[in-house]
Amino acid sequence: MKVFVIGANGNVGRLIATKLADRGDEVVAGIRKPEQAAFFEDRDIKTAHFDLLGRPEEMGVTLDEFDAVVFTAGSGGKTGDDMTLLIDLDGAVKSMQAAEIAGIKRYVLVSALFAEDRNRWSDSIRPYYAAKFYADEWLRYRTNLDYTIIEPGALTFEDGTGKIDTTGVEGGSVARDDVASTVVAALNEPATIKKTVPLITGDTPIETALKNA
Amino acid sequence: MKVFVIGANGNVGRLIATKLADRGDEVVAGIRKPEQAAFFEDRDIKTAHFDLLGRPEEMGVTLDEFDAVVFTAGSGGKTGDDMTLLIDLDGAVKSMQAAEIAGIKRYVLVSALFAEDRNRWSDSIRPYYAAKFYADEWLRYRTNLDYTIIEPGALTFEDGTGKIDTTGVEGGSVARDDVASTVVAALNEPATIKKTVPLITGDTPIETALKNA
Repeated sequence: MKVFVIGANGNVGRLIATKLADRGDEVVAGIRKPEQAAFFEDRDIKTAHFDLLGRPEEMGVTLDEFDAVVFTAGSGGKTGDDMTLLIDLDGAVKSMQAAEIAGIKRYVLVSALFAEDRNRWSDSIRPYYAAKFYADEWLRYRTNLDYTIIEPGALTFEDGTGKIDTTGVEGGSVARDDVASTVVAALNEPATIKKTVPLITGDTPIETALKNA
Repeated sequence: MKVFVIGANGNVGRLIATKLADRGDEVVAGIRKPEQAAFFEDRDIKTAHFDLLGRPEEMGVTLDEFDAVVFTAGSGGKTGDDMTLLIDLDGAVKSMQAAEIAGIKRYVLVSALFAEDRNRWSDSIRPYYAAKFYADEWLRYRTNLDYTIIEPGALTFEDGTGKIDTTGVEGGSVARDDVASTVVAALNEPATIKKTVPLITGDTPIETALKNA
């Protein structure tokens, strides 16, 4: 499978790109700055410039000939909420439009646990949840993409366990490594198409959990 | 007509509430702080507390028994883009959901000229346009409201002329007074239902322009 990873230079993005390459997929890491290329070149992973502040038509050219898109970009805590609006929300939506322009069907979005329920948005980062919510909703209702929305709980840097819980209505945390493994596995699991998958650490092997997503 | 005005204490909101009352409509000004009530009490206009950071269900209770909602709230330039996301976008959407909860059909939203076209968003306030865009899109595609989206150009404090241009693809400005008169007239003009109406100053009387919107 030929996969384009948007936000590849993030902590989760690097893991996703590496795992895809390890599995033998043809992966291209979308990066914003040339200096972000070194990590991927060291691992024989191709990179392509991808600017979420650009136009969907231009993004679409970059995405041409891919089978799937993974969106794991986030403006992060270092930038202001202007970028939360323009990257996490509008950038995500533009990448969906770009995927459709390029004729891609499969699109996996990394969102956040409880993004669909305002009453559970964390007060300290409500704008982030709002951006995620509207991006998720666009993907569900305004595109014809074969989407999967992965909703991880609090991200940790712990080692991955390969075991998850996708029923996670009570909240919890999950290793970034397991988030990445789940995204990579979801790309090959048709049962996850048109699904929103909550994700915390758990007792079920990732592949088994996704079959029942 | 019994009309609830959200964002009534803004420059345009005050004009809308005053014009509705002058016309003989039963108008209630939604305000966030008690000290905002004086302006309306001086004009015999009722007020009600309305918090766009609250829950749609609570807002819905406030909106019960109204015939129409006007949304002209804006977080403004004094607050950060966190409020752009939580007021201009999510607050607007929650008010739409509240209107539906309350069984209201008619909903008039004051947006911004060119909000539907990213290529024409002003660079200096792109987050504001993004928020407006996603609120407008929700109103168009995710509600069953009889909506009208009014898209004024650059707002001025000049006297109103009562004459507008609703074909305004070239951009331009418009007096806040004429924006308010257009919103008030649109409430009574069925031809504006399910329409997006660009609005700049022009040569056509407001009522005539809206009949052909």
